[in-house]
Amino acid sequence: MRTLASLALALAIAAPAAAQNFQKPEDAIKYRRSALTVLAAHFGTLGAMANGRAPYDAAQAAKSGDVVALASTLPWAGFIAGTDKGETRAKPEIWTEQAKFKEHQDRLVDNMQKLSAAAKSGSLDQLKAAWGPNSGSCKACHDNFRKD
Amino acid sequence: MRTLASLALALAIAAPAAAQNFQKPEDAIKYRRSALTVLAAHFGTLGAMANGRAPYDAAQAAKSGDVVALASTLPWAGFIAGTDKGETRAKPEIWTEQAKFKEHQDRLVDNMQKLSAAAKSGSLDQLKAAWGPNSGSCKACHDNFRKD
Repeated sequence: MRTLASLALALAIAAPAAAQNFQKPEDAIKYRRSALTVLAAHFGTLGAMANGRAPYDAAQAAKSGDVVALASTLPWAGFIAGTDKGETRAKPEIWTEQAKFKEHQDRLVDNMQKLSAAAKSGSLDQLKAAWGPNSGSCKACHDNFRKD
Repeated sequence: MRTLASLALALAIAAPAAAQNFQKPEDAIKYRRSALTVLAAHFGTLGAMANGRAPYDAAQAAKSGDVVALASTLPWAGFIAGTDKGETRAKPEIWTEQAKFKEHQDRLVDNMQKLSAAAKSGSLDQLKAAWGPNSGSCKACHDNFRKD
């Protein structure tokens, strides 16, 4: 029964990815890692500007704002059934605590939309103000769902 | 002199990426590969629908349309100086034939905007019509600039 329940949950989370045409589990893992890498790169770019480690560049901030808004919605489709092993640091909790994992996804997506709006405002002050509450966005999820 | 000219060219192509804060050449390589992986995944999703290998899903098509439009603009910032070796199949021509490489980038970005518009139209017929001329978008560049 436990296995059936797990399978049903796995299928439920897999559903939105169905149209994404992953031919092998490795493809889904590579995809989600890639989406997270792109997200992290632009999140880092915004952080560097917010923290004064890089000069403010309004055009780049707007671009990175677009990227974090969209990229934050992508990785989750790759956490399909059978992708808990291989080249991944995904913890089993992703599949055993799906409601909590989904909450983290939703919070990240929501936070990234806010950060994106500030990044596209053309104002460094707005970017700085939005950065603070978001600087831990990656860590919150990694602590719970990613192996060290 | 050749070295100086190469360096100047490398800096020229590196400029748009300056604000992206790559701390090491490996970071730039990982970033561009990741952006291309995300692009390829959604390009493949649209192709599967256009070719009837996957059922048409208007919401997923629109999402993938957003992704190909944005992701096609990203990888190029990662082709900075010093990233011609390491975990990459980048050919030296990327740096020795920069005008041609840039032409390929521009054509891809332009094609992906058109494909995106069709993908977001809600019409499978429009997606099919736009897919045909775009199905070779990856290959054109890979033949010239990526090692087998």
